[in-house]
Amino acid sequence: MSELKNDLLLRALNGEELSRPPVWMMRQAGRYLPEYLKLRAKYDFFTRVETPELACEITLQPINIIGPDAAIIFSDILVIPQALGLQVLLDEGKGPLLPKTVNTLQDVENLQVEGAAERLHYVCKAISLAKKELNGRVPLIGFAGAPFTILCYMVEGKGSKTFDKAKSFCFTQSPLAHRLLQKITDATIEYLKAQVKAGVDCIQVFDSWSGMLSSDDFAIYALPYLKQIADALSPLCPVILFPKGSWYALKALSQTSASAIGVDWTCSASFAREQTSNKITLQGNFDSSKLLMPTAHIKREVKKMIGEFGTQRYIANLGHGILPTVPVDHAKAFVEAVQNYPN
Amino acid sequence: MSELKNDLLLRALNGEELSRPPVWMMRQAGRYLPEYLKLRAKYDFFTRVETPELACEITLQPINIIGPDAAIIFSDILVIPQALGLQVLLDEGKGPLLPKTVNTLQDVENLQVEGAAERLHYVCKAISLAKKELNGRVPLIGFAGAPFTILCYMVEGKGSKTFDKAKSFCFTQSPLAHRLLQKITDATIEYLKAQVKAGVDCIQVFDSWSGMLSSDDFAIYALPYLKQIADALSPLCPVILFPKGSWYALKALSQTSASAIGVDWTCSASFAREQTSNKITLQGNFDSSKLLMPTAHIKREVKKMIGEFGTQRYIANLGHGILPTVPVDHAKAFVEAVQNYPN
Repeated sequence: MSELKNDLLLRALNGEELSRPPVWMMRQAGRYLPEYLKLRAKYDFFTRVETPELACEITLQPINIIGPDAAIIFSDILVIPQALGLQVLLDEGKGPLLPKTVNTLQDVENLQVEGAAERLHYVCKAISLAKKELNGRVPLIGFAGAPFTILCYMVEGKGSKTFDKAKSFCFTQSPLAHRLLQKITDATIEYLKAQVKAGVDCIQVFDSWSGMLSSDDFAIYALPYLKQIADALSPLCPVILFPKGSWYALKALSQTSASAIGVDWTCSASFAREQTSNKITLQGNFDSSKLLMPTAHIKREVKKMIGEFGTQRYIANLGHGILPTVPVDHAKAFVEAVQNYPN
Repeated sequence: MSELKNDLLLRALNGEELSRPPVWMMRQAGRYLPEYLKLRAKYDFFTRVETPELACEITLQPINIIGPDAAIIFSDILVIPQALGLQVLLDEGKGPLLPKTVNTLQDVENLQVEGAAERLHYVCKAISLAKKELNGRVPLIGFAGAPFTILCYMVEGKGSKTFDKAKSFCFTQSPLAHRLLQKITDATIEYLKAQVKAGVDCIQVFDSWSGMLSSDDFAIYALPYLKQIADALSPLCPVILFPKGSWYALKALSQTSASAIGVDWTCSASFAREQTSNKITLQGNFDSSKLLMPTAHIKREVKKMIGEFGTQRYIANLGHGILPTVPVDHAKAFVEAVQNYPN
């Protein structure tokens, strides 16, 4: 592994003293970049994900164009359902579709955990290529969806505002839901270990839909599996948990083996710091729609955000993914405002 | 006005001592009722809303079939954009569509606040009919959408997971957003006053999308207008504010002139009670997808919920609208579990 020239992210995850926080943006390799749109016009989504050279190129695009302090491998959380044996279609603009959903014991039994990580070898190949291409400029982040979020898609079969079908599956068939969650967890742990072996410097677990659960149900259907992943991966590399919308779980998550917790834009820095007793690194939480403001306003808002989180044990990021409508120079203004802090 | 035989809701809103909490369900007049589906098959959405006899019949359906402690007038929050001059289409199953959205100063200027409440006379007619039909059995709740939520639809033009277009309108054209919010507020206050005059016993303001705002932005774009509405209506009847997802605003809202705050299912009773210093009536927050559990489990969960909120200064309800897939006897089990509490 090449020596990192910029290791701010890893030092922030490690709780070391820094002069300014590192910064990256969720979905930084994405649709706001004209260079990405060019590849999107030529190759469909899963071709981009499954072709290591393309995934590597897309991963590097924001590093070359915007210059954040970390890269994140270009992939998708739904590769896990695919590797477990479910078909996943992606109608771009419309979201994912799983024609065959998981409903019964037989459906769960049919999922093939064994070999799932191997079937995702193309992600590891992309990671190796990206590490080589990055040549130590910044760390590379690996990722996976959290088990509850993956269950949501596997049961619901598509995106949803409330994932009521997935939730009622949990509530009415609780033992089966846990069996499914455990299978997803087992596959995810193997998959993330393979990512580390391929070269990622840390990993982020996206629980994009955990915020649909009450605090009590988060403790039952989300937390135990996040803990398992953190415990399995933390000895290998730092782990960032991002349970979007689960403001109520910050305290419990700060007591896991994870190195950092991502917070979304609805959760204030003061609440997050108070809940986590300032003991863990926090990541977030710029409201993505504020990147549409004039760049001078973006800079002012970034300063305010860093002022609230503080410069220590903090990774500047958005509160959710960057929007396709954000001008490139606005994304750049966001990153530079952090990198030039406090100026 | 006829004397109310069951005034539990009003007494809970007034903070009086009760032997058990009142109960009603958001969207209780809706698609889980076969009787509603029959009318839906015959009349399109806005015909149902705009025909007082139909709106009255639909309002009464859950009272006759399920027996909650309050009725809520059957209508829609998007009647306000219509009354202000915007076309609203509803493709059932797909959600609302506003072909012409609000973007410019001219668009805002074109909105006709004057006469807006009068143009919604059919709602008041439905209220008069429903009051007569209820004949004092239970109180009748009137309602409107909160200004920020109405802005969301007027600017975005349709439903959205994040309402980024509407939010960036606020952030990039803040003075214009406030002008729009004030116009919506003015029309809404007149509309709600007309509802009170027509006979509603209390009102609920639905801020369905305020949870898309950060705590700081809620204080700018949502709270001041909720306050105006509460201040204008509270002298006339009790006001319930339901800012879905805005857990961070409970303290500020408990200090308004509102009589109650609705909390969604992600916010625990203990957090809500603590934030509001037990000074205001709370309403909520059963996870709607739990109504798909067997009725014995529903009863157990309802008891748990009441145990957590307590029987005083509390209105049992769902945390968001009832799902179309809920069996009628499950909805009944929910209502009866509250009414039979503590048995």
